Amino acid sequence: MEEQKRGCASIVFNNPVYVHEYASIVGKKEGKGPLGQFFDFIEEDELFGEKSWEKAESKMQQRMLNILFDKAKLKPSDIRYMCGGDLLGQLIATTFGVKEFNIPIFGLYGACSTMGESISIASMLINGGYANNIIAFTSSHYAGAEKNYRFPLDYGNQKPLAATTTVTGAGGVVLSNKNNNKGIRVKGITTGKIVDYGVKDSMNMGACMAPAAADVIYNNFKDLSVDADYYDQIITGDLGNVGKEILLDIMDKKGYGIKGKYMDCGIEIYYSDIQGTLSGGSGCGCSAVTLCGYIFDKMKKKQWNRILFVPTGALLSPVSFNEGESVPGIAHGVIFENC
Amino acid sequence: MEEQKRGCASIVFNNPVYVHEYASIVGKKEGKGPLGQFFDFIEEDELFGEKSWEKAESKMQQRMLNILFDKAKLKPSDIRYMCGGDLLGQLIATTFGVKEFNIPIFGLYGACSTMGESISIASMLINGGYANNIIAFTSSHYAGAEKNYRFPLDYGNQKPLAATTTVTGAGGVVLSNKNNNKGIRVKGITTGKIVDYGVKDSMNMGACMAPAAADVIYNNFKDLSVDADYYDQIITGDLGNVGKEILLDIMDKKGYGIKGKYMDCGIEIYYSDIQGTLSGGSGCGCSAVTLCGYIFDKMKKKQWNRILFVPTGALLSPVSFNEGESVPGIAHGVIFENC
Repeated sequence: MEEQKRGCASIVFNNPVYVHEYASIVGKKEGKGPLGQFFDFIEEDELFGEKSWEKAESKMQQRMLNILFDKAKLKPSDIRYMCGGDLLGQLIATTFGVKEFNIPIFGLYGACSTMGESISIASMLINGGYANNIIAFTSSHYAGAEKNYRFPLDYGNQKPLAATTTVTGAGGVVLSNKNNNKGIRVKGITTGKIVDYGVKDSMNMGACMAPAAADVIYNNFKDLSVDADYYDQIITGDLGNVGKEILLDIMDKKGYGIKGKYMDCGIEIYYSDIQGTLSGGSGCGCSAVTLCGYIFDKMKKKQWNRILFVPTGALLSPVSFNEGESVPGIAHGVIFENC
Repeated sequence: MEEQKRGCASIVFNNPVYVHEYASIVGKKEGKGPLGQFFDFIEEDELFGEKSWEKAESKMQQRMLNILFDKAKLKPSDIRYMCGGDLLGQLIATTFGVKEFNIPIFGLYGACSTMGESISIASMLINGGYANNIIAFTSSHYAGAEKNYRFPLDYGNQKPLAATTTVTGAGGVVLSNKNNNKGIRVKGITTGKIVDYGVKDSMNMGACMAPAAADVIYNNFKDLSVDADYYDQIITGDLGNVGKEILLDIMDKKGYGIKGKYMDCGIEIYYSDIQGTLSGGSGCGCSAVTLCGYIFDKMKKKQWNRILFVPTGALLSPVSFNEGESVPGIAHGVIFENC
């Protein structure tokens, strides 16, 4: 399938693409959540020592990348390309976060699906022979996202139960054509389309994204001629409690039930009952830090040997929402397996 | 060089990537400029029949893509991936412009360098065997960009001579692994880094981007062991009159003069003296429509047989600018040649 088939949305790689190293950094709230022990660094200061939320997010990316270089025992000059982005308009957290590393970069925007998009492109570029090492990364910051998409925190607006809480976190992975001791590889990818069910509620992004996630999971199953049994876990990015039920329902109706094999990073990352996070976590950082913390840890311990990782994005801007547009969804799937 | 060399920013493709077809659509002002005759369609209505500038830009993308499908004699299902984006926050012009085509998409943001970024990624994916046909595309709209980055048009703000005029236009190209009668191919790419000279004037983006363009052109020359003689033309995206002089100066100082072989899409697209466009055109659409109109026409007529196309982007947002940040630049180079 490496040579693509007509109508097929998936690529399975013949030459392995390895997870060389990974790193994650989160804010205080995420550090106190159920996955706190799996992150490389928990920053107590929400401003990361900076004077604005945007600069805080850039600093968070920088720190995550420095941790990643240390763990990977690589220098910036060992990295051929960076593939990544963030949620802020014009990707400014990324621009100011990575510019000092002086690495050729492809700026990506897939809303909260960005970690799936960046790993997909990076994997194809490595598998195609264009690079030895590529960093795929993304981030989000709760306060920056609220300011960008909704209201500044000082406004103190209330949110409905279907709303999610943007994760403060940055995650990155060095993908490589050489096998390190991690023993995890990217087996393949399934690339998403923009799926619009006409939902206009930006406080219910799970409902906007669930059909896109279902589309990717369904296409993955069809393209590889498999079903949920093929995977130890199928993991969406940030559907939250509301989106989860919609996804499970759609998959049941398609005849490919995934219950029992399914988790959502946004549901796992907080104690929603005591942390007041409503429907769950969201943001590019949500799936990125869960992957680069909890998920890869489960794989290293061989508790999971093959997973389908499906970060999910809600495609809106403050302008499109205020102009009454719907919120389309997108998702990008990546198959990781132990080798 | 298809297998990358350490420290090298360029890829030269062994398996050709062909320009299968291309299309361009522009607004009234661009239609009246020096390149008017080369565009596929000139829309007299600045709103493209829609009610907002954002929707206008989405409609413009849709129309351009429909023209592209017609010219290419392809259906959306013949296209494996789309790679593209726009200038608006969260790429909403693209989201609502392309969603009906139902094609897997990688959303990209490289500011006005996006056409170079999208062609670079699309070329590697085709050359790597992951796709037969990919559309690389982008757009910008004067009124939408002014509203997003500066002031709504109704405000009537004045601009300095160093400011540029965002081009209303959308350009797209179908890249393919099969040779069509066009006879133009992507020979290689040179991927840019974020280059920040600390310029903080968002009304002088040429000065912000010129060092990034120089970096890409210089790396291209070094990586391929060539100089300006290798190309019939070296073409930047939207440096304008101010940025052009800075670029020529930097290249002279590096010992690789490019005068006499150089043009800038932003300078060519308007009659700046009579159209009141100040330093020239800018925006993702500027280099995209010049490529998919004028430049490919010159190549088809064999007036140019090998060019280096270097779209240039200024990495800012209204937030970063208002917070006093600098405006870093980025550029992505693509070598096109007749075959």
